[in-house]
Amino acid sequence: MSVLLADRTWPEVREAIERGTVFVVPIGATEQHGGHLPLETDWRLCSVAAERACRLAAEEGVPALVTPPIWTGFSPHHMDFPGSVTLELSTFIELVSQVARSLWHHGARKILLLNGHGGNANLLRSAVQQLRFQHGVRAAAASYWDFVLPKITGWRRSRPGGIDHACEMETALMLAARPELVREEHARDATWFPNSDFLSGDLAVGAPVAVTFAFSELTEDGILGDPTASTGERGEELLAAVAERIAAFIREFYGWDWDRPQTI
Amino acid sequence: MSVLLADRTWPEVREAIERGTVFVVPIGATEQHGGHLPLETDWRLCSVAAERACRLAAEEGVPALVTPPIWTGFSPHHMDFPGSVTLELSTFIELVSQVARSLWHHGARKILLLNGHGGNANLLRSAVQQLRFQHGVRAAAASYWDFVLPKITGWRRSRPGGIDHACEMETALMLAARPELVREEHARDATWFPNSDFLSGDLAVGAPVAVTFAFSELTEDGILGDPTASTGERGEELLAAVAERIAAFIREFYGWDWDRPQTI
Amino acid sequence: MSVLLADRTWPEVREAIERGTVFVVPIGATEQHGGHLPLETDWRLCSVAAERACRLAAEEGVPALVTPPIWTGFSPHHMDFPGSVTLELSTFIELVSQVARSLWHHGARKILLLNGHGGNANLLRSAVQQLRFQHGVRAAAASYWDFVLPKITGWRRSRPGGIDHACEMETALMLAARPELVREEHARDATWFPNSDFLSGDLAVGAPVAVTFAFSELTEDGILGDPTASTGERGEELLAAVAERIAAFIREFYGWDWDRPQTI
Amino acid sequence: MSVLLADRTWPEVREAIERGTVFVVPIGATEQHGGHLPLETDWRLCSVAAERACRLAAEEGVPALVTPPIWTGFSPHHMDFPGSVTLELSTFIELVSQVARSLWHHGARKILLLNGHGGNANLLRSAVQQLRFQHGVRAAAASYWDFVLPKITGWRRSRPGGIDHACEMETALMLAARPELVREEHARDATWFPNSDFLSGDLAVGAPVAVTFAFSELTEDGILGDPTASTGERGEELLAAVAERIAAFIREFYGWDWDRPQTI
Amino acid sequence: MSVLLADRTWPEVREAIERGTVFVVPIGATEQHGGHLPLETDWRLCSVAAERACRLAAEEGVPALVTPPIWTGFSPHHMDFPGSVTLELSTFIELVSQVARSLWHHGARKILLLNGHGGNANLLRSAVQQLRFQHGVRAAAASYWDFVLPKITGWRRSRPGGIDHACEMETALMLAARPELVREEHARDATWFPNSDFLSGDLAVGAPVAVTFAFSELTEDGILGDPTASTGERGEELLAAVAERIAAFIREFYGWDWDRPQTI
Amino acid sequence: MSVLLADRTWPEVREAIERGTVFVVPIGATEQHGGHLPLETDWRLCSVAAERACRLAAEEGVPALVTPPIWTGFSPHHMDFPGSVTLELSTFIELVSQVARSLWHHGARKILLLNGHGGNANLLRSAVQQLRFQHGVRAAAASYWDFVLPKITGWRRSRPGGIDHACEMETALMLAARPELVREEHARDATWFPNSDFLSGDLAVGAPVAVTFAFSELTEDGILGDPTASTGERGEELLAAVAERIAAFIREFYGWDWDRPQTI
Repeated sequence: MSVLLADRTWPEVREAIERGTVFVVPIGATEQHGGHLPLETDWRLCSVAAERACRLAAEEGVPALVTPPIWTGFSPHHMDFPGSVTLELSTFIELVSQVARSLWHHGARKILLLNGHGGNANLLRSAVQQLRFQHGVRAAAASYWDFVLPKITGWRRSRPGGIDHACEMETALMLAARPELVREEHARDATWFPNSDFLSGDLAVGAPVAVTFAFSELTEDGILGDPTASTGERGEELLAAVAERIAAFIREFYGWDWDRPQTI
Repeated sequence: MSVLLADRTWPEVREAIERGTVFVVPIGATEQHGGHLPLETDWRLCSVAAERACRLAAEEGVPALVTPPIWTGFSPHHMDFPGSVTLELSTFIELVSQVARSLWHHGARKILLLNGHGGNANLLRSAVQQLRFQHGVRAAAASYWDFVLPKITGWRRSRPGGIDHACEMETALMLAARPELVREEHARDATWFPNSDFLSGDLAVGAPVAVTFAFSELTEDGILGDPTASTGERGEELLAAVAERIAAFIREFYGWDWDRPQTI
Repeated sequence: MSVLLADRTWPEVREAIERGTVFVVPIGATEQHGGHLPLETDWRLCSVAAERACRLAAEEGVPALVTPPIWTGFSPHHMDFPGSVTLELSTFIELVSQVARSLWHHGARKILLLNGHGGNANLLRSAVQQLRFQHGVRAAAASYWDFVLPKITGWRRSRPGGIDHACEMETALMLAARPELVREEHARDATWFPNSDFLSGDLAVGAPVAVTFAFSELTEDGILGDPTASTGERGEELLAAVAERIAAFIREFYGWDWDRPQTI
Repeated sequence: MSVLLADRTWPEVREAIERGTVFVVPIGATEQHGGHLPLETDWRLCSVAAERACRLAAEEGVPALVTPPIWTGFSPHHMDFPGSVTLELSTFIELVSQVARSLWHHGARKILLLNGHGGNANLLRSAVQQLRFQHGVRAAAASYWDFVLPKITGWRRSRPGGIDHACEMETALMLAARPELVREEHARDATWFPNSDFLSGDLAVGAPVAVTFAFSELTEDGILGDPTASTGERGEELLAAVAERIAAFIREFYGWDWDRPQTI
Repeated sequence: MSVLLADRTWPEVREAIERGTVFVVPIGATEQHGGHLPLETDWRLCSVAAERACRLAAEEGVPALVTPPIWTGFSPHHMDFPGSVTLELSTFIELVSQVARSLWHHGARKILLLNGHGGNANLLRSAVQQLRFQHGVRAAAASYWDFVLPKITGWRRSRPGGIDHACEMETALMLAARPELVREEHARDATWFPNSDFLSGDLAVGAPVAVTFAFSELTEDGILGDPTASTGERGEELLAAVAERIAAFIREFYGWDWDRPQTI
Repeated sequence: MSVLLADRTWPEVREAIERGTVFVVPIGATEQHGGHLPLETDWRLCSVAAERACRLAAEEGVPALVTPPIWTGFSPHHMDFPGSVTLELSTFIELVSQVARSLWHHGARKILLLNGHGGNANLLRSAVQQLRFQHGVRAAAASYWDFVLPKITGWRRSRPGGIDHACEMETALMLAARPELVREEHARDATWFPNSDFLSGDLAVGAPVAVTFAFSELTEDGILGDPTASTGERGEELLAAVAERIAAFIREFYGWDWDRPQTI
């Protein structure tokens, strides 16, 4: 049987909740990803990672289900490129929050908001704070790449700035997950890294100061990073690692006693 | 090539918009549908109808694309049944509105909000009013069954009250679209029609007065209607008719000059 | 004694609530109605219908009271014509909702939102959903003309498009209710019906697709429909039928047991 | 012809606006007024005052029109008494604001928000600030009794605390304006004035500190003040003075050049 | 020990609350005050007054603490002058409200919102209403000058219009409180009083009608009033009186039984 | 002259803006910090760091000003400890945003939101996104400790979990900045670090998954971390480093051309 929540009937979901099932909500965006990747990239990748992780968890006896993906993210910085869809900040937070609150209402107690879009990351952490203190709902949030940050260091071939958007990482993962939708002929090296000690231009590099730019200010075709060294094989390697780490978290998460945080 | 917007890259969407493409946004819900239908029923059916209609339109040279489905509807009346997900009224309207505004922002001028959930119907008509006068965005809204109301009269075998929720119509359509997800052994006749001259309990019967009930007040297993006479064959017949009528509208819509409404 | 809530003192209202009184809230708009009808048309007509119906109900022993009319509707489509007043969508819904919640707070359990403006109709149905599931308040909503749709078929002399705004119906009703305010010399036939299988331009004709236009896009003087065959006599005939049907509903409504919807 | 905006057609309003007409919006509440006054008291009194003032202004050639009264005020402090209706603070401000913005949209430049309910007074002053700086709309706000504060000193027979709610002033005015709705047998002296140098309990007495109480904390039947000395004759005297002063303001207001405030 | 809340640790605050401490929240603005007063004027003056008053109260055994000042007021009318900071109306009310609700949450029952900016005055009275009826929180609100209105009559040397903004009063008080920040060479007489029976242009003069202007419509350098007769000595005299009256209120307030308002 | 914005008059601010001054907005919280640190800790530390940094910048000719501190943060997780003040998430974001928008309105183009409270960090990054895309305002956001993360590694004596709240770092910094307010006798080692590969309990340690707990779930006296090794000398060392790095950023920031992001 699939790990998709939406395939189930309500009595089946009731039973799943009684078993302590972990619910994973993939949250991405529908937005430009250069000339070589489809609009679906962000929500597709976190969906694929979520499904794989849930299957891995299930194989070890930990029940886990994936909701449909939230495909509407916070993407105002991409709106100069046709096809990009964005929500306003508060609507995005409310959408995610109300999905989590619905699940919690039915008794689900292990909800993971699994992010696939850089522009959503802070907002999801904020949503977790609001869920807890405004609505009494506990949830966990994470971006899929953060599960494998150490691995990425060894995996990557690009220099700093190579992993940002429609980049080495995303292109490799899409070549693994949805190769038929990658137009490799439009991939190009569009690495950019700010000339500053205080800023970053790479998902795997930290920096103290946050600023934000429209993508059209930085790139002509929407790429920031270097997809030219991406292959399906390398993508599959990374995707497998992502799924494994998320599955490891799902197993740990399943065992948490939320009401006694000091035991976690 | 598919009719799915999310499969495309942004330069492809730019071109599609320049050709006057009709964009169809399937809008459903993820909610209980009795013991025999999966949670996906509402968003799946409007997605399937939308895709079929767009392919039919495309075959006659009218470009049309389908966005991913909005799977979070207005479903508070189902929240006593596990797995149902609901948005608040204002969040639902904003979500739909912001998707439409994003498309409009890029130049799309023919946007059809295609509904598959009864609880959304009034809200989408309200959203169209708000889009037009608060945001300057034109859109059309319709529920898929309203395209075939006259046909349903002849098609149905159930008495009034037989077509409401997880009913004769929805079960037949799911047997056509997603037979592997229908648990027919849990279907039962749960027809209800109010004993009033002023109310209706059937999607195909009108009435002057609007009231609203929680489903748990009316049905134990979530069914309202009679799915027992539903077959995949009858479902396919209806689904084909739905897709044909929507395709007909898409063709007409494609030709409208919004700026000269009197010519429509 | 009058059927007006606002004429009463609070101890009198307390007694009325204890008797199970039905409260009717007339909801219209203050907006242009061509050169021949006053701005008050929408709220006046639903107020008059409500008062007549409540008197009829009272004559048969069913207690019913009418609140002052909500004269601020959702009318952005009329704002190109001076004197029209509009609320934003969310403010309109909140206004209506808070009036209903106030009555419910005091113990009123039978609240009818009686609409007299086309642009409000979907919003009131949405308000009923929100009242029930966000605030725990039950209310019924209806537009006065929907009570007599079958009768209108025989009554009307205009062709499709003749009954829409400042039209055959509204002009006749105002000639019955407020003849001194009708400037008949400015009435003219301004019938419009879209050339489409999917749209309607008449309050008494259904259609699957909802779109919305500014009135200034369709008519120079604000009329849509044909008031030229309207007379006070025909208006009185229709008004009497409207009041009778609403009274019939009030009597039925009075007997409902909201807590056992299946008995309705 | 009447001074009621809603009696007019849109071309007539267009003409009125072109003549620089002053628009008066009566704003009251529908709320308990003891056992002797009807729920309508607040909105009725400001409507009557507004109509009289507009007629007086018109007699001197200054065009003025009265909108229908806003009968939904900010009255949470009265909600323990049946029949009272209240809006939330923000909804009340938005309602008033959107009425003013609608009139301004059509070209009206002299809008007076004429208040008849103590609980609205601060909110209307706040609304004027918001209208000006958030919406670019100029309006004036005043409570009718503030126009005659000096006169009240000589007119009153009650001690401090006698003029507050369902009091000497309101009862006298209702005896003048709507004697058939006053149940004098239920009037009683319910004067209350706080034993504090910093608070007031009288509309005609100022104090530095603002606090707020529910009426049910202070009075059993909803009266605060002393209606026992009120007569229709004394009410007529005060009502005439109120109307005269408002008319004087309307005449002055008509002449203001808003764009050159220093000339006012 | 200081009277500053923020100097304390949480166990100390717990103890203070148990003793029935009065909490004073200074609420001002950061906005232009002519060429001679700093941006801090409004929040500084209400902070200084609050601290002095709390020390006076404490000397008589009444515990009182001052929170940090809210330095972001409602100041859109000053935004043509650089450095002015403004909140939107609703944000300002929420900010104040949430500070009061936080204190109430911990058990504080005597909260005084002490205002130092004219543009905030109505909003704080509105906030008190909302706190009480939307949140169940009791608070008192006052502007510091309202505590000494009678004294100001004798104290002032300016004519009507002399006390409004960056005026005789504020300049004197700043000369007493923060003389090092007053640039006296830029003070000038900029008295303005409207030529109307219905308006005021002086904090110590009442008027029935409220309107609002941008300061740039009325004054070139931001002054309205006459600071030329202000001295530190006269400022100290007034400041001492202000602090004394607030202290007197704090002592009275400390003894109130909120739950029995009729005893106040 | 001080670096405090609020000390200035508006003509002085106008001049400062014309010179390209960097504006630093310290943003903290007023909340419990164990039994040994005062409520002011968070807003005090970022204020002190901001002032020092601005003075350092000024010494090198880069103009910089500090606004008053925003002392109301997002602190619901501290509300079980008396004296803590919290805003709702959306109010906090709006407050910060409107301060930044006010400065931008006057022409300021270099605005740094300098955070001193862990609970604010994500929200400020979200605010920067909203400012840019909803309001067209560019701002930078950073938490003061993120400027010295590498240094902290060598500086700290505590094990993981030692730097979180009222901890080694904050206690040392307060001993440097406000020693008179530190009650060292109440400091204790309350180090906590989750037993998980996916979570962190230390400001200087990263982790992929975000969850949130109330402090009362984790600590009895509000401390998380180890303040026992903190000294004023070590605090001064760290504070100097923080101020130096922020000053370095201010100098760099001063030179940015926002309109050409690729040059940064």
